Amino acid sequence: MNSKTPPSDPVPSPGPRQLTLGELASATGMDLDGGAEAAVDRVASLLEAGPGAVSFLANTRYRRQLAQTRATAVILHPSESVEGYPFRILYSRNPYFDFARVARLLNPLPAVQPGIAPSAVVAADARVDAAAEIGEGVVVQSGAAIGPGCRIGPGVVIGSDARLGADCRIEANAAILAGVRLGDRVHVQAGAVIGSDGFGFARGEHHWEAVPQLGAVIIEDDVCIGANTTVDRGSQGDTVIEQGCKLDNLVQVAHNVRIGAHTVIAANTGISGSTVIGSCCTIGGAVGIAGHLEIAAGTTLTGMAMVTGSITDPGIYSSGVPASPNREWRRNAVRFGQLEGLVRRVEQLEKTLGAGDKE
Amino acid sequence: MNSKTPPSDPVPSPGPRQLTLGELASATGMDLDGGAEAAVDRVASLLEAGPGAVSFLANTRYRRQLAQTRATAVILHPSESVEGYPFRILYSRNPYFDFARVARLLNPLPAVQPGIAPSAVVAADARVDAAAEIGEGVVVQSGAAIGPGCRIGPGVVIGSDARLGADCRIEANAAILAGVRLGDRVHVQAGAVIGSDGFGFARGEHHWEAVPQLGAVIIEDDVCIGANTTVDRGSQGDTVIEQGCKLDNLVQVAHNVRIGAHTVIAANTGISGSTVIGSCCTIGGAVGIAGHLEIAAGTTLTGMAMVTGSITDPGIYSSGVPASPNREWRRNAVRFGQLEGLVRRVEQLEKTLGAGDKE
Amino acid sequence: MNSKTPPSDPVPSPGPRQLTLGELASATGMDLDGGAEAAVDRVASLLEAGPGAVSFLANTRYRRQLAQTRATAVILHPSESVEGYPFRILYSRNPYFDFARVARLLNPLPAVQPGIAPSAVVAADARVDAAAEIGEGVVVQSGAAIGPGCRIGPGVVIGSDARLGADCRIEANAAILAGVRLGDRVHVQAGAVIGSDGFGFARGEHHWEAVPQLGAVIIEDDVCIGANTTVDRGSQGDTVIEQGCKLDNLVQVAHNVRIGAHTVIAANTGISGSTVIGSCCTIGGAVGIAGHLEIAAGTTLTGMAMVTGSITDPGIYSSGVPASPNREWRRNAVRFGQLEGLVRRVEQLEKTLGAGDKE
Repeated sequence: MNSKTPPSDPVPSPGPRQLTLGELASATGMDLDGGAEAAVDRVASLLEAGPGAVSFLANTRYRRQLAQTRATAVILHPSESVEGYPFRILYSRNPYFDFARVARLLNPLPAVQPGIAPSAVVAADARVDAAAEIGEGVVVQSGAAIGPGCRIGPGVVIGSDARLGADCRIEANAAILAGVRLGDRVHVQAGAVIGSDGFGFARGEHHWEAVPQLGAVIIEDDVCIGANTTVDRGSQGDTVIEQGCKLDNLVQVAHNVRIGAHTVIAANTGISGSTVIGSCCTIGGAVGIAGHLEIAAGTTLTGMAMVTGSITDPGIYSSGVPASPNREWRRNAVRFGQLEGLVRRVEQLEKTLGAGDKE
Repeated sequence: MNSKTPPSDPVPSPGPRQLTLGELASATGMDLDGGAEAAVDRVASLLEAGPGAVSFLANTRYRRQLAQTRATAVILHPSESVEGYPFRILYSRNPYFDFARVARLLNPLPAVQPGIAPSAVVAADARVDAAAEIGEGVVVQSGAAIGPGCRIGPGVVIGSDARLGADCRIEANAAILAGVRLGDRVHVQAGAVIGSDGFGFARGEHHWEAVPQLGAVIIEDDVCIGANTTVDRGSQGDTVIEQGCKLDNLVQVAHNVRIGAHTVIAANTGISGSTVIGSCCTIGGAVGIAGHLEIAAGTTLTGMAMVTGSITDPGIYSSGVPASPNREWRRNAVRFGQLEGLVRRVEQLEKTLGAGDKE
Repeated sequence: MNSKTPPSDPVPSPGPRQLTLGELASATGMDLDGGAEAAVDRVASLLEAGPGAVSFLANTRYRRQLAQTRATAVILHPSESVEGYPFRILYSRNPYFDFARVARLLNPLPAVQPGIAPSAVVAADARVDAAAEIGEGVVVQSGAAIGPGCRIGPGVVIGSDARLGADCRIEANAAILAGVRLGDRVHVQAGAVIGSDGFGFARGEHHWEAVPQLGAVIIEDDVCIGANTTVDRGSQGDTVIEQGCKLDNLVQVAHNVRIGAHTVIAANTGISGSTVIGSCCTIGGAVGIAGHLEIAAGTTLTGMAMVTGSITDPGIYSSGVPASPNREWRRNAVRFGQLEGLVRRVEQLEKTLGAGDKE
């Protein structure tokens, strides 16, 4: 099968760029142990790196790979005692973090090409900064404002009175609907929908009446929103995603949710209406969080966790049972439905034996 | 952090409109206890309401907030005995329902602007009613028909021979694919896909053969479909969503499913092929329903429920276990895998003790 | 309610086509027991079939329906002993598989209409084969290549340097992003996103730093991708979906995942980063698979299974507990949280009784 896989060309970009280790050290503030003139043009894992590559060691489990790597330079924590290796060392107190920065320096994002593509349609009263790039087929509706350095990908819709700060990237076919506010450097991936109507209906005698969703969505600086993720507008107040949050693909954020700064949320997770999530939480994939809850700052929820009550003590919370062979699972799942009865039987046994003890 | 949140302007709309209480009472059929000339222009919760706002009390838990509200008028059930309050009262047997109606009266949807946007592409043999609005970048394919009062948002695709009744709203970048039929007043949110091929493949010796999906999707009057939700066409018969159903974001409806009238389905839920859901069901978020089942009318499924068999008695059904601290969860999850063995041990104990009793 | 359902017209297609049984037998290699001149123009289930229809029997449970069917022809396994029925027989060792082929022969896909729609925007240096169809509103970016027989639906975005082989079908508003490679006959449904950035961030002292996602997505021949499904590009290496895989709607495939040939994955499932799934697996809906795992070829995961460890023995694996009436579920879910304690109590009883035995 592998032989059938067509070769993968590098993703197009202005680079990859070639830089010297001295330039990298200077740009990132890392200390370099010499070899400032050596040029590098890519990043790679220790085992895959060859001459011209920068690698890193963040997990001591991989330390023995240092002996095998052919990288030109390796980013290491200063506490690592490494001698006699042929590679150059960039010292960092956070090697993976600085590796990410080096990777970006060597693979810069394509430069924004200011201007409005011929097939884009921009309302007469929309304000598009001269330093923004508006792609083919984009629609910018009445009253919208787009800041400098923004890159609006092909097919994107920017709704009426939506406002984007500086340097936002909105990818293909995403929709930033009416009145949504984005801060600076917000990244919205393809197909995401920001500002859909919240799910609010009032039960009548014969039908459900839609409750007008009058709020907006506020997304602060440096937030990333994954592909095909949906963020509903508030019913009266706003839905808010605070600065630095990172949301993966296919996440649902219901109306009036607030997500605290720097919280990360993996794919397929759903957050129900009016729930408030603290800052710096780590939320795994396919988690479900009920509505009107509060999740303490710093909480971790593992994948597929089901959260039906507020969490006041930060910590790691989990639910679900890992998959087991179907035959075993069938038996145990049936037994789950009999748990209450089993407890009663054990209580009866304890009573009988306890009675026996007394005799 | 809050201080960094940019202020949220109201979502653009033709209003909010200003109406007198007399006008509201007349439009909704509610009784008013005087003050017909007082003007209001917005809705708000009891605590957030100020002069000019209409609020409501639907849950007696909030009754004491009546003493604090500064609303100009409050919608109350006639059974509430309220005297000496400064606000006006609109009497309703269903305060939240009438609050929703008042909110819509004060915040009407933007009026449809009949006509076809210059960048829209409409096939020569498509029939677009003169009273429909076709947004920028819309594509209407051959044989499609769009009724009066429809509003087709930017970037939407209407497939060949699709038919939309009157007053439908299709939001940005949604896709209504070939042969799909929508009734009147259907609301499809951004990015939703109606009429994708059902997931049907026949296993061959060396590959899966796609089973042609020849049916359509029928969506009846007053249905709402959430953002990025997907509804597959039937394999031979049709997939049907009956009148008044409300589906949230990121819901999956597989081929040949039928959803009964006025059923509501929260986000991230998936319904497998050929399942028939009765009318007036309430289905929570992230529920999974297996294929070829029947769910009785009026059934409630709580969030993350796993439904593997038909439900014939309406009622509330649940599954899943709420998240607990990871350390506890680890132990209990292991014990789940030993449940069958535990039951055997209890049976043995019972046998031993029972034997002992006899002696 | 049914009386309100508007009648469903057939989905537009060049057909349905009329063929003789002789032509069908010849095209599929099935044996026919006479009646080669009889014409058919559609497929149907045994009970719904009438004159002119081809049906099939794949499950012996439905054998008695043979007596009732009015089909002109039925596809049967040669081992079926059927005599005296009025219908013609097409013999197949895999009746459902050949039924799918017959359905396609009678309902061919619309022929590709080579050419570029007037409103499509194709970069000057993109290579679009003359035998490809580029729909209205499509954007093809710089350096992209589209092979012969491809059909690119309205509103689709083909990113820079993406490459599509022959006979791919990309449906409305899907996005094939920069550098993605598709083989031949790949089918991507509406709204799907291929090549979004993987979810990779390095934790810094004050924020998360995006780790550049430098890999691509490789999708091999004959893969189907469902509506609004997302497939992330690799962080350094590529994300790979091998030939013949079928993915349903709203599936999430994270960066650097590899999915083996002919694996099928139902809707709402999420696969975390760097996980390798073997060939010919069957993965149910709403399954969650953690990152960095290996799933053996031929494994079956039932719907909503939670996979947190590698699976080395192929087989059927499951988790979750089917929904039960809410009152029972509440009690049992509480007991789940006490399982560890319950086991201790049973151990204590066993100890007590064991001690008793010894006395």
